[in-house]
Amino acid sequence: MVILGAGFGGLTCAKGLGNAPVRVTIIDRHNYHLFVQLLYQVATAALSPADIAQPIRRIFRRYRNINVILGEVTGVDAASKRVTLASGRTVDYDKLVIATGSSYSYFGHDEWAKIAPGPKTVDDALAIRSRLLTSFELAEIATDPEEQAALLTTVVVGGGPTGVEMAGAIAELARYSLARDFRHIDPRKARILLVEAGPRILSAFPESLADHAVKVLTKLGVTVRTGEAVTGMEPGVVQIAGKPVRAGTVIWGAGVQASPVAQWLGVTADRTGRVTVNPDLSLPGFEGVYVVGDSAAFAGRDGRPLPALAQVAHQQGTQLGRALRANLAQGTPMPPFRFRNRGNTAVIGRNSAVFDFGWWHVKGWIGWVLWGFYHIYLLTGFDRRLVVVLEWLWSYLTFQQGARLITGDGGKK
Amino acid sequence: MVILGAGFGGLTCAKGLGNAPVRVTIIDRHNYHLFVQLLYQVATAALSPADIAQPIRRIFRRYRNINVILGEVTGVDAASKRVTLASGRTVDYDKLVIATGSSYSYFGHDEWAKIAPGPKTVDDALAIRSRLLTSFELAEIATDPEEQAALLTTVVVGGGPTGVEMAGAIAELARYSLARDFRHIDPRKARILLVEAGPRILSAFPESLADHAVKVLTKLGVTVRTGEAVTGMEPGVVQIAGKPVRAGTVIWGAGVQASPVAQWLGVTADRTGRVTVNPDLSLPGFEGVYVVGDSAAFAGRDGRPLPALAQVAHQQGTQLGRALRANLAQGTPMPPFRFRNRGNTAVIGRNSAVFDFGWWHVKGWIGWVLWGFYHIYLLTGFDRRLVVVLEWLWSYLTFQQGARLITGDGGKK
Repeated sequence: MVILGAGFGGLTCAKGLGNAPVRVTIIDRHNYHLFVQLLYQVATAALSPADIAQPIRRIFRRYRNINVILGEVTGVDAASKRVTLASGRTVDYDKLVIATGSSYSYFGHDEWAKIAPGPKTVDDALAIRSRLLTSFELAEIATDPEEQAALLTTVVVGGGPTGVEMAGAIAELARYSLARDFRHIDPRKARILLVEAGPRILSAFPESLADHAVKVLTKLGVTVRTGEAVTGMEPGVVQIAGKPVRAGTVIWGAGVQASPVAQWLGVTADRTGRVTVNPDLSLPGFEGVYVVGDSAAFAGRDGRPLPALAQVAHQQGTQLGRALRANLAQGTPMPPFRFRNRGNTAVIGRNSAVFDFGWWHVKGWIGWVLWGFYHIYLLTGFDRRLVVVLEWLWSYLTFQQGARLITGDGGKK
Repeated sequence: MVILGAGFGGLTCAKGLGNAPVRVTIIDRHNYHLFVQLLYQVATAALSPADIAQPIRRIFRRYRNINVILGEVTGVDAASKRVTLASGRTVDYDKLVIATGSSYSYFGHDEWAKIAPGPKTVDDALAIRSRLLTSFELAEIATDPEEQAALLTTVVVGGGPTGVEMAGAIAELARYSLARDFRHIDPRKARILLVEAGPRILSAFPESLADHAVKVLTKLGVTVRTGEAVTGMEPGVVQIAGKPVRAGTVIWGAGVQASPVAQWLGVTADRTGRVTVNPDLSLPGFEGVYVVGDSAAFAGRDGRPLPALAQVAHQQGTQLGRALRANLAQGTPMPPFRFRNRGNTAVIGRNSAVFDFGWWHVKGWIGWVLWGFYHIYLLTGFDRRLVVVLEWLWSYLTFQQGARLITGDGGKK
């Protein structure tokens, strides 16, 4: 069996097959499994990458039937049951689980990716961190007030949970952590624009929670601009609703684009590149091929596909792994996947979060405490859970961020 | 007053002038002060960069007379008392402290730098980490046994403390942390060559300590080859004493080259680029210009220049800062610098270190415990001291490294 991707979907599926009488090969282009929900904290200098990334090999060390390959999938040949990697190497499969996730969609403007990275990989997060911090450094030595104001402007594109969390965290970085470290600028006056093309932010959340988020963000100094689309971009300038806005840092968190599963297999995809799967997560027309997570369009109770969320991938991978194990051992038929909503959440700064459990809406400080415990719980299995908790405590008490480093080429412009 | 460089020399000098009635500008090309002695632990995945790097601005936050500029010095015009930065900006000074340190010397073969990075900056250390880990990944999927053996070979060039510490740490990474994570290779069989052109390793240490280091390294699986110079290098192949050795990773720790202070000022330098300074650390012929640390050739008691060590830079910066403060306040004449040997040390793996106090030579487990406490003490002022200690404890007990991530382009070949 071959599993493509070691995100939440692939990882949990492989774990379910740990030490089962079947040889499993899991392929990922990174050597680590990433806790993406906290990547915004790497981008805003609160955590180090190693805090939220675990070597895939280490996770599967005890499962001698699981083989890990570092490689980037470039194609799937369903006729000969073979996966091709970027290195040219091929891997044969009898059953295939595709869990290759998604990336940000720049709505046909891939050239914007270099100007406005989105927090999806460790390298992206470090690039954002370097750009943010470099903008403040350049503003400090800028002599032209207009340039200084431009450098102190950050535009976050997309009002979903990623955009909200990024904007909130940047506001706090500027207001607290950097506040007294400069001599010629006041980082507290940094301008942070959260731009959303739709009528409101957090569109997947109930309106009351979105309203709360706007209130908290505004208090933190974030300007929320809804109903305004980004129409163009070049280094240092973003066109918002047709008007140019100069910005030192631009961060993308707008659209989601599924991995090219549909292209690999020659099937039709939906608007965001997802392929429709059967109730048991198998791909119609392909025997022994399953798709889980962000690349799969799985119809929820209301008929609409489940959103691209970590908890969906996690549950799909877990259930699929168990089902495959039972199917291999006893020939148990593959059961349909059942999604249980564990709550949808977004954190806004150091004392507030929104939590939507469907039947219960939580916001403010209680939401924030819930968010904290929930994420500490989710980090189970991460060796550095204790370190993360310590860093959070330390940041909370001192208002400092622990990883304010400009590294790599990310900061150079 | 302008201070160039926020390493140990520049940092301690600036601290000595904190809140004194003088305006101080400190310029560094990074936004952080780095505890370089532990950089080999970043390169071998034990620590994260943020654990051993502190934002310079944060360090000087309370000293309102100290101004921090992120910039790379490209020249000094002593006639007009002006420093030029890579951005084109100039900074005027009345007094100038040059503490720009050193980099690795490739003995005229600068093209080797890309093939064999040395652990001198955060980005170098991350590149080494990625290359090391990628070599094991590529070896795991290699089908040609010769290629596999080549990928499992690491060459460390230079038998000084850096080379010894790197070789020891890589051996332990392979023997313990990676040992059981692969299916097709046995990382414990990784070949690690420590190549030294001179007659013995750790030439700055007493012979008994160097002998001990060879013994411990050999036990860890490192092959120590002395009297053999590296004569050539291309990607994947190192010429050692004229014979080609295939290697997946090559790490440089051989020569030291001072920053181009001599070029900036048009004075003569010694073989490694250092400029000779007066007993009070001032530069002969230049009024109000001082040089400290790796770029200064300061004659020790035996007449030979003091070595390029963190403790030398630290003591020079500290004493110069105090002297300048007293000179500014009361016109106290500048006293001569006095070096106090605090002990020279190199750690070799998880249970052994050598420590040379001159009058006392320590080796083995006691040396290692001393090394640990000494470095925990030296980390005073680093916010993450507790995290570092926790990570060390955790690594020591579990034999695991906490930051086994392949990031950036470093891993790609």
